[in-house]
Amino acid sequence: MVNVSIQLNKDITTPMYLQLSSSIGNLIKSGKIKPKEKLPPIRKLANDLGVNNVTVVNAYKQLEANGYIKAIKGSGYYVLNLEDKPTEKASSMTNLEEDEFLEHEDIKLMSNGQIEISSNTINFASTTPDPSIFPIEAFKNCLNEVLDRDKGYAFGYQESNGFEPLRESLCSFLEVYTNITVKKEYIQIVSGAQQGIDIIGKTLLNPGDYVITENPTYTGAVSVFKSRGAQIVGVPINESGIDLKVLERQIIRYNPKLIYVMTRFQSPTTISYSKENLQGLLKLSEKYGVYLVEDDSLAGLSFENFDESPSLKSLDTKDKVIYIKSFSKLLMPGLRIGFIISPENLSSELLKAKHSTDISSSGLIQRALHLYFEKGHWEDHINYMKDIYKEKYEAMLKYLNELKKYGINFTEPKGGLNFWITLPQGVEATKLYLECVKEDVLIVPCKIFYVNNYRNNDNTIRLSYAATNLEEIKAGMKVLEYSIIKLLNKSKSRTYMSPMI
Amino acid sequence: MVNVSIQLNKDITTPMYLQLSSSIGNLIKSGKIKPKEKLPPIRKLANDLGVNNVTVVNAYKQLEANGYIKAIKGSGYYVLNLEDKPTEKASSMTNLEEDEFLEHEDIKLMSNGQIEISSNTINFASTTPDPSIFPIEAFKNCLNEVLDRDKGYAFGYQESNGFEPLRESLCSFLEVYTNITVKKEYIQIVSGAQQGIDIIGKTLLNPGDYVITENPTYTGAVSVFKSRGAQIVGVPINESGIDLKVLERQIIRYNPKLIYVMTRFQSPTTISYSKENLQGLLKLSEKYGVYLVEDDSLAGLSFENFDESPSLKSLDTKDKVIYIKSFSKLLMPGLRIGFIISPENLSSELLKAKHSTDISSSGLIQRALHLYFEKGHWEDHINYMKDIYKEKYEAMLKYLNELKKYGINFTEPKGGLNFWITLPQGVEATKLYLECVKEDVLIVPCKIFYVNNYRNNDNTIRLSYAATNLEEIKAGMKVLEYSIIKLLNKSKSRTYMSPMI
Repeated sequence: MVNVSIQLNKDITTPMYLQLSSSIGNLIKSGKIKPKEKLPPIRKLANDLGVNNVTVVNAYKQLEANGYIKAIKGSGYYVLNLEDKPTEKASSMTNLEEDEFLEHEDIKLMSNGQIEISSNTINFASTTPDPSIFPIEAFKNCLNEVLDRDKGYAFGYQESNGFEPLRESLCSFLEVYTNITVKKEYIQIVSGAQQGIDIIGKTLLNPGDYVITENPTYTGAVSVFKSRGAQIVGVPINESGIDLKVLERQIIRYNPKLIYVMTRFQSPTTISYSKENLQGLLKLSEKYGVYLVEDDSLAGLSFENFDESPSLKSLDTKDKVIYIKSFSKLLMPGLRIGFIISPENLSSELLKAKHSTDISSSGLIQRALHLYFEKGHWEDHINYMKDIYKEKYEAMLKYLNELKKYGINFTEPKGGLNFWITLPQGVEATKLYLECVKEDVLIVPCKIFYVNNYRNNDNTIRLSYAATNLEEIKAGMKVLEYSIIKLLNKSKSRTYMSPMI
Repeated sequence: MVNVSIQLNKDITTPMYLQLSSSIGNLIKSGKIKPKEKLPPIRKLANDLGVNNVTVVNAYKQLEANGYIKAIKGSGYYVLNLEDKPTEKASSMTNLEEDEFLEHEDIKLMSNGQIEISSNTINFASTTPDPSIFPIEAFKNCLNEVLDRDKGYAFGYQESNGFEPLRESLCSFLEVYTNITVKKEYIQIVSGAQQGIDIIGKTLLNPGDYVITENPTYTGAVSVFKSRGAQIVGVPINESGIDLKVLERQIIRYNPKLIYVMTRFQSPTTISYSKENLQGLLKLSEKYGVYLVEDDSLAGLSFENFDESPSLKSLDTKDKVIYIKSFSKLLMPGLRIGFIISPENLSSELLKAKHSTDISSSGLIQRALHLYFEKGHWEDHINYMKDIYKEKYEAMLKYLNELKKYGINFTEPKGGLNFWITLPQGVEATKLYLECVKEDVLIVPCKIFYVNNYRNNDNTIRLSYAATNLEEIKAGMKVLEYSIIKLLNKSKSRTYMSPMI
């Protein structure tokens, strides 16, 4: 049995379980705790340290996810040989989440294909959570319980609209977390938000149709709409949401089939819509009979003391909103499970589109996710996620505030996974991007997010803290600072020289 | 023996077999050829007319499909009483065609939701293997091994083209079982064959394009092509595969973007292509620069002592074949994993289409499937599956041979999961379907599988033994027999009464 002293500091902002996991991790690395040794039972250690059990559980989870220890069922946690540490199967693409694949292509184009993402890259471009925080143990138990319970039926064809008990759990989930009341009949399970958008496109769009999106917006949605032969019209977004005046003009002008919006922690701008703006949006949709597609993937990631703005769907009295929810950011991207809330009159069309797209989403994962909700894991997990993200958010915020002296500007999103930074006069986003790439730091220049007519914007970048740890954030922000200084000086010297040209 | 003169014109665009069938049809209607008379043997007529045998075969088939003549096995083709000619009125099902492509749900739709598939239903419609034969334990071990090895990375984003080690295993799998040599770069993992078709549609089809399919064919493919705005042209399929003469004519007329075929145990006809036909198909694809899509989901399920015909892809020297393989029938449908072999020049387009469809297929399942192959489970499993299916196949075959006395007709598929049964004169497939449904037995009437211009076919059914056990096969075939007798008597009484009407 291990016998070493551990110091925890309740006053600093680092969550206790992170302090605990890192000190145990150091003891293992330093050899003070040897391979094959058993760690103290959760209750005992919690008791000795005067922390609660969840803290120790989370610390052990973290250590296991990082390959320092291993749980042996019914026995406890044991230290591993660090040589056994799992090699990270993550490929360059694995670190790039949905927004970024297409962007990554563009980025490569912009950088003439020079960049390759390596394990040393500090990736402020990816909004994919670090796999070490995924609730693998809990989910693994759910998977095994499903296989023991349902046997072969877990691998039969699943109903195309989704596993009924999961749809029921989602109804309560929506009630509790999003204040949306919906019947399970109108929930359509999909293999992630991207498929949700694809299926909506198949249901509503024909060549020549118009689609209105926020500008800037999610390029994964734009590419789906274009693949249906639709024309995209971008409408500017401001602090309180999409510009309703411009929107109405464009609706009248183009008579669009649908309007695609991200109302909470919009990507890339991080804006959350004001209630007034949401209601204005619903009015326009009713007045002109156009569907609203609400992509709500980041809702739920608002940090404490911040009252999350309502979802469009929760205010939708006329049943004009098609709501898409992904679990990629809140739970695990690899689940490939999300859902659509369909307006009553579209549900059978959406079901047909889903069916001809891939028949059904994985029944096994749907059944395991259902158990995961039923066992109440969600609540613990989402709080755990928020603790981790909040810490990283605050770290990046601190560095960004320091950069204000160079003239950068941003609004605090108070949640989600991104910052949207307006650069100082004379610093172009694409140039800054290329400077950072040289130092193996990846950021996303705004160009990528703009729909056609706004392509010339080049003064904003999106930074995400999702995929990086505190050390990487520190190092990456230094690189960002130096690159900004470098470009500022260049632009100054250009300014001075210009009279001579 | 008939002795009349027939004029055929080789210069006009109407296919010879259609000219022939219509002139014989007119001779029958005009009474120049009398009921019960025997038509000339295929070779003789072909010889007399200076056309080749296939033309006559197709003409006779056409006449039979339209209820003018009837084949009696080992004897020849006989003229029927036109009073027995099946009415060609559209059945209540026709408007449902697009929904009818898969398993239980579709059968429910087919019956306008009248049927509930209960545990008592004997389901000859479903080609889904019985979940009791799925290799759950072995796969569960693979899942757990992956989770212990890869931790959170098993739930990170997977590369959009698929988990590399799995793509490597698939290369060897193809080498061993399908005699196809391919580089892993050209393998694209998809969430089942249906998604494979969807992605190919997105990559190649635009509104107004033409697609050629076998007729009858898989309606799941048809609905994808239609959702891309494509026009479908059906080409008849005979004992050795698609009718190459008609195919070439249609290629010239419609200049299609792709030709979709199932070369082994084609569904619904159960035909496996002859090598000559495959080579003819490849020649046409090369000559006219059109892609061939080979959907090969049932290959591997050939029963011993039957030498499985080669796949089109294995003969594809010009890289014109897009190959789709599903594991739904051979392993477990709920895996939702299959793959595409892409021609070199299409792979990046297919990758983009996959990405904008759902980013990636489940990394967890891909990793577990990789282990499943690596551990050599596949070999054991597929032999086990074949033993089980062969037993059911032979049971159904025995009962079907007994039903021949009522005038049913079929070719032995020697593998796959289906029989394709031509019904006795006077027994309509849709009526038979409804009779069987009353007794809680599900069969699939042929209408569902026919592309537009052949919609009036109603004399064939597809029976599958995949989802039923030996007892159910016995009981279900009894129901089928009674229903056939019932309809035969009805049709006789109609014939007797007809003169009085």
